[in-house]
Amino acid sequence: MIHQTAIVSDKAQLGRNVSVGPFSIIHDDVVIGDDSVIESHCEIGYPTKLAKDESLVLGKNSLIRSHSVFYQGSVFGDSLVTGHRVTVREHVKAGKNLQIGTLSDFQGDCVIGNYVRTHSNVHIGKHSKICNFVWIFPYVVLTNDPHPPSNYLVGVTIHDYAVIATMSVILPGISVGKHSLIAAHSMVNKDVPENMVVGGSPAKIICEVEKIKLKDGSGNSAYPWIKHFHRGYPPEIVKAWLDESDNSF
Amino acid sequence: MIHQTAIVSDKAQLGRNVSVGPFSIIHDDVVIGDDSVIESHCEIGYPTKLAKDESLVLGKNSLIRSHSVFYQGSVFGDSLVTGHRVTVREHVKAGKNLQIGTLSDFQGDCVIGNYVRTHSNVHIGKHSKICNFVWIFPYVVLTNDPHPPSNYLVGVTIHDYAVIATMSVILPGISVGKHSLIAAHSMVNKDVPENMVVGGSPAKIICEVEKIKLKDGSGNSAYPWIKHFHRGYPPEIVKAWLDESDNSF
Amino acid sequence: MIHQTAIVSDKAQLGRNVSVGPFSIIHDDVVIGDDSVIESHCEIGYPTKLAKDESLVLGKNSLIRSHSVFYQGSVFGDSLVTGHRVTVREHVKAGKNLQIGTLSDFQGDCVIGNYVRTHSNVHIGKHSKICNFVWIFPYVVLTNDPHPPSNYLVGVTIHDYAVIATMSVILPGISVGKHSLIAAHSMVNKDVPENMVVGGSPAKIICEVEKIKLKDGSGNSAYPWIKHFHRGYPPEIVKAWLDESDNSF
Repeated sequence: MIHQTAIVSDKAQLGRNVSVGPFSIIHDDVVIGDDSVIESHCEIGYPTKLAKDESLVLGKNSLIRSHSVFYQGSVFGDSLVTGHRVTVREHVKAGKNLQIGTLSDFQGDCVIGNYVRTHSNVHIGKHSKICNFVWIFPYVVLTNDPHPPSNYLVGVTIHDYAVIATMSVILPGISVGKHSLIAAHSMVNKDVPENMVVGGSPAKIICEVEKIKLKDGSGNSAYPWIKHFHRGYPPEIVKAWLDESDNSF
Repeated sequence: MIHQTAIVSDKAQLGRNVSVGPFSIIHDDVVIGDDSVIESHCEIGYPTKLAKDESLVLGKNSLIRSHSVFYQGSVFGDSLVTGHRVTVREHVKAGKNLQIGTLSDFQGDCVIGNYVRTHSNVHIGKHSKICNFVWIFPYVVLTNDPHPPSNYLVGVTIHDYAVIATMSVILPGISVGKHSLIAAHSMVNKDVPENMVVGGSPAKIICEVEKIKLKDGSGNSAYPWIKHFHRGYPPEIVKAWLDESDNSF
Repeated sequence: MIHQTAIVSDKAQLGRNVSVGPFSIIHDDVVIGDDSVIESHCEIGYPTKLAKDESLVLGKNSLIRSHSVFYQGSVFGDSLVTGHRVTVREHVKAGKNLQIGTLSDFQGDCVIGNYVRTHSNVHIGKHSKICNFVWIFPYVVLTNDPHPPSNYLVGVTIHDYAVIATMSVILPGISVGKHSLIAAHSMVNKDVPENMVVGGSPAKIICEVEKIKLKDGSGNSAYPWIKHFHRGYPPEIVKAWLDESDNSF
């Protein structure tokens, strides 16, 4: 399970059935849950002073794709899945079933809920708070410094079920409300209420999310997306989504 | 030609004069044409269920630069050249002389013509169709989901000779016409006719492409670019471009 | 200091106390200063014809993080620090204390002063000129071709102390003045005077930089940033910044 070319510290704690691919490095302060896969060319548990001797903890059933770098000092729930060349720095606290897309860059010092998905090339600034079931699409940046460079950092908050489309920037301290959608190529400099579509640079309110209709001819609303998009979520969660009355949104 | 640290499957089919660099991995379902170079730290033929046992096929004279990852199940014509850290997923069907820039991310399930160039950090969403002689510049994203996340994906089409400048987003299902130019930092949400310059967020028509003049003092039009930019194209193609009467554009 | 899996050319000139991490490659035409660290999975001194046999020269106390690629033919002052997966091509001439963020891509043929910082995923086009103490934030692109593709390239100039915020594009030949700030998600197509804040797509002048106040409650101006942000700069430089009378800006 450990490729002969991999370099795995004796101090690292690997669960049962953990595999480590060719040319990967596992450092000292690492705990990896059972049935996890670390692919090739990775560096896991990169040591840093900022981590203050805290371990990197990956839950069970994790899959870290090739060329990824995880720093020491972050904790992930079970079933983390990453793309290739992901960078994750110290002090990320993430729930279960997180998906991190290829080339994404988590700067650390952030809190992430359960079932969050980031697509490719997403940049999560320090002090971000991402709640549950959030979607973030390619080339989105969550910022944190209202007057860079400075020592005054204030993170972004993305609430449950919110969606941020491609190449949008969220300015420091902004809150994006539950179920809301940020259109592609937007710059968001005001808080976004719940259930709203915003877009533009700077972003303005376009409409309520339910007014966006699916293009599949069904006539149904595209948002909240949990009414129609269920791939990768457990049946019990999907059932709860479908059982909720519409006015719960 | 095969570096002693490289890991090459016995099942992979390598042509004559194929070299594989240090710390690279070649998986089972891979066919590599003669005189190709796979540089260091690559993973070629990454196995996935989505590839349905199809091979990765690279044509002759290919050059894959370091740290790149190609999935199983795509087919490329001769003379593919990539930058570093390219990601190419399953079911890309590409013509000859494709150039893929450093950090670019091809999501798979797309069709690409001949002599297409993408610069660094270009993201090609699934179901994209890119015709021949297209140029795509850094940080461009071709999207595919009109209401993300959903199961209704509709790709972008980029017609022959079109140019998409830096950090533009093309929305799902949009068609960019032959010879047209998308200005930098644009968000394109309407089809772009042939021979037009569009720009802005959302993009609007600015002028006909021929009105953009070269800044070299010649007084000539900068577009169609095939009248003045010929580096890397075969002489017979360049001759045909120059022989065409102007009114063919 | 040289990991047993590293591949280091006999022709490379390594100073005292230089360490090279696992699975890294050091090519022939490389000079590395004393007390430098090359981490894992790097390729240093990548040979290219464009470099015309010139060496890659890294100064003392350099730190090159994992998965980075440096081409032959660039020269860096002391104390270069990079993130992970940096790409630096030929003919970069950079001063001391340069910081290059994770995933950044320097295309070569550019001049960079002292104490320049680029954050993650910054793209520096050929022929850029970046003066001293400049800050460039994530997903910024400095372009160079006014009518791509063409052979007429004209670089961007960024003057001392200027700041370019996240996901902005600077068009070819543009000059950004001393102490000025480009707001996030901007497209800059006109020269920016000194001491100005500009923003938008296309960017317009918003105000003088000193009108931006720190959000720390102090009532002080956030710009010029050198009056309050000093992390990582030598005491003598900071002292000079603080001693300067305000009307020097």
